[in-house]
Amino acid sequence: MVAGKEGTWVGRVHPGWDIFGIANGGYLMAIAAKAMAERAPGRDLTSMSAHFMNPGTPGPVEIVVAPIKTGGTFSTVTSVMRGERPLMAATATFAEPTRRIPEAMIVHSSAPDLPPPESCVRALPSGSGPLPPPFMDKVRVMIHPEDATALRGERTGIARIRGWFGLLDDEPIDPFATVLAADAFPPAVFNTNLPLKWTPTLEMTTYVRDPGPRTWLRCQFRTRFVTGGYLEEDGEMWDEDGTLVAQSRQLALVPR
Amino acid sequence: MVAGKEGTWVGRVHPGWDIFGIANGGYLMAIAAKAMAERAPGRDLTSMSAHFMNPGTPGPVEIVVAPIKTGGTFSTVTSVMRGERPLMAATATFAEPTRRIPEAMIVHSSAPDLPPPESCVRALPSGSGPLPPPFMDKVRVMIHPEDATALRGERTGIARIRGWFGLLDDEPIDPFATVLAADAFPPAVFNTNLPLKWTPTLEMTTYVRDPGPRTWLRCQFRTRFVTGGYLEEDGEMWDEDGTLVAQSRQLALVPR
Repeated sequence: MVAGKEGTWVGRVHPGWDIFGIANGGYLMAIAAKAMAERAPGRDLTSMSAHFMNPGTPGPVEIVVAPIKTGGTFSTVTSVMRGERPLMAATATFAEPTRRIPEAMIVHSSAPDLPPPESCVRALPSGSGPLPPPFMDKVRVMIHPEDATALRGERTGIARIRGWFGLLDDEPIDPFATVLAADAFPPAVFNTNLPLKWTPTLEMTTYVRDPGPRTWLRCQFRTRFVTGGYLEEDGEMWDEDGTLVAQSRQLALVPR
Repeated sequence: MVAGKEGTWVGRVHPGWDIFGIANGGYLMAIAAKAMAERAPGRDLTSMSAHFMNPGTPGPVEIVVAPIKTGGTFSTVTSVMRGERPLMAATATFAEPTRRIPEAMIVHSSAPDLPPPESCVRALPSGSGPLPPPFMDKVRVMIHPEDATALRGERTGIARIRGWFGLLDDEPIDPFATVLAADAFPPAVFNTNLPLKWTPTLEMTTYVRDPGPRTWLRCQFRTRFVTGGYLEEDGEMWDEDGTLVAQSRQLALVPR
């Protein structure tokens, strides 16, 4: 990714980050987050929301980045990513590192109970069909055996997927990788009777509650409502010590 | 609100919509949503995310509105609201009404059980202290008697607030009023041991799952995690017939 004319970054959607031929939304968010972070140097990505407009495909993208507020405890930066068509409008808030407060005052839920990564089922590209998608060999998505039934052509009937997320070679997971992790798992509804098809994200917001870094994330994704042609998917990501790392929510269209 | 130079709307934050002297975030979102909707005529507000930068105070605001994608099933419009300082960067997605699909395929949770509005406790400005805030007489926020303890100087210890939201004179609740409703209740953490002080919102996203209109919303707001100096608040809004109307989530700073 290189700086173009002022406020414009030129990057590239690399091949192999797709699902059903469409670039993964979390991958696009991570690219835009890095471009926006250049306008908030030394600060922690805290909150990012993205609205998706058209499917991303491999090739060059232009990201127009506009810092709206800098200075103070929080900076806010907006961005619009375009390929041949507009792809994503995203806004992010970055916090001064002095803002970091380790103390947890209320924790009403806990990290999902998972077998160790080596006892989970790694989602890897099938080589033949479209699922699991090609980008699965660029990260480590290790699914809880109970929830990995869709990989075996079965369904649990519960719209939930739990598992570990790691990068290759134990590369540390920073807030940008956390944004990627939040959209890296198969849709939770793949464990229901909905079609195993592209589930287009309309909007996704991720809150990075603790910047880390860490090597593994304990993740859980759930959908409670499939109504009006839409579904939401809520994610929670924890570290190995039980600290809440991030929360995510996305609104997607029902696959069909 | 009137159109200024192309893409710029001039509006006003009216007095009386404040809490601790700071304009309510849902009120600012509703103002910006209406400005953005002008660029997506005849479409339903479906998803809106807002990043807040500085406290809003009564007076003129300028909203720079930019449609990023129009046409197709969904339109996406961005906006930046400024008073004397930048206040809010918000993006919204609007759906073609033909997109409306009444069918609910998965509903894993249900509307909160509430006594009828007349048996709930209406939050009204105290006239003396800052709580309940002044804007409570511009809407009808009727809190479940079990959760209205903060109004009596007690706490339930559970970060949850349930209740009805209505407009004055039974004015129908459209998607803009739904965005307002999502931020109209006292913070759920007011029922815990956190201070009863301003709880600044950093980011808020509301999904309007069904555009309505309807007269009353059954609402529930919960906080599960107060960590790292932040808290999230998740909201669900339902109609009287048990249809999911909207979901909201905000990231806020711990009041202190």
